[in-house]
Amino acid sequence: MRTSKSLPFFVIVLAWFAICAQAQAASSHKSTQANEAEVRQVIERWAKAFRARDLDGIMSVYAPGDAVIGYDLAPPLQYQGNAAYRKDYADFLAQYIGPIEFESRDLRIVAGDDVAFYHALERMSGTLKSGEKSDMWIRATSCLKKIHGRWLIVHDHLSVPVDFATGKAVMDLRP
Amino acid sequence: MRTSKSLPFFVIVLAWFAICAQAQAASSHKSTQANEAEVRQVIERWAKAFRARDLDGIMSVYAPGDAVIGYDLAPPLQYQGNAAYRKDYADFLAQYIGPIEFESRDLRIVAGDDVAFYHALERMSGTLKSGEKSDMWIRATSCLKKIHGRWLIVHDHLSVPVDFATGKAVMDLRP
Repeated sequence: MRTSKSLPFFVIVLAWFAICAQAQAASSHKSTQANEAEVRQVIERWAKAFRARDLDGIMSVYAPGDAVIGYDLAPPLQYQGNAAYRKDYADFLAQYIGPIEFESRDLRIVAGDDVAFYHALERMSGTLKSGEKSDMWIRATSCLKKIHGRWLIVHDHLSVPVDFATGKAVMDLRP
Repeated sequence: MRTSKSLPFFVIVLAWFAICAQAQAASSHKSTQANEAEVRQVIERWAKAFRARDLDGIMSVYAPGDAVIGYDLAPPLQYQGNAAYRKDYADFLAQYIGPIEFESRDLRIVAGDDVAFYHALERMSGTLKSGEKSDMWIRATSCLKKIHGRWLIVHDHLSVPVDFATGKAVMDLRP
């Protein structure tokens, strides 16, 4: 009979289909821990490069092209694109002599399969070209996308709070 | 024969398994457009409540309990938890008479299945209790998690840039 002969073939096709669908479901749900661990590696790579004032190393964790939008400590309101943000970083690093000390507090990483963010209070300290010591805590938020299998930062937001009574930035706060 | 008799049953089980696995894969991969549309609804709900100075409406888009960490325009460095951030909003709203005008520029929404963020330049203007007009552009970043099927904000970062030469916040920038 035609039906019973084709049945084993049908079973094999169905089994293959089921296995593929399961694999797809499993791979799309990498554990939260695994995603967070990957993002933590990005943060550590960035921090190592930042301390060493290694501009290429720093920029290696940012998305290329127009994807990066940076809200930095100083004006303008925003930096648009990797090249503009790279120049901003270069200008910042050029203000310092020697390494920049860096520590972070209250870091939280939240990572899905393709979108993630982290935020922390970050202390940056070092010696400026003028010889003056710079030492302040800032608030930092970074947002990432997984692009072609790699976590890359597409958005940074760095700031210090402002005292609206005086119009002054408040740069001596400690967490 | 036992084998050929149990085959149809096996086929049905396998088909059910395949259908379930496919459904799981499909539901875990809601389209990017659908996720972004859901986050956009959160933004619109927030904006409507903000313009109306409706504190409960505003807070309805934030996660309950300790999940919310807010970096606001003014000190402290951070607000920890929904209750503290709600009080911060209440104090902010209390400074104004009547509705607060709000517009946003360069909004970008990036949404995965469970984690999302958006950022924009936002203009807030209104009349303060002193009678003075307040009108400024700020940078705003919000990060969301899908919690029990609902998108809720777990992190805000709001700021204006700082002129480090004068130590003053720069509150008259326009995008």
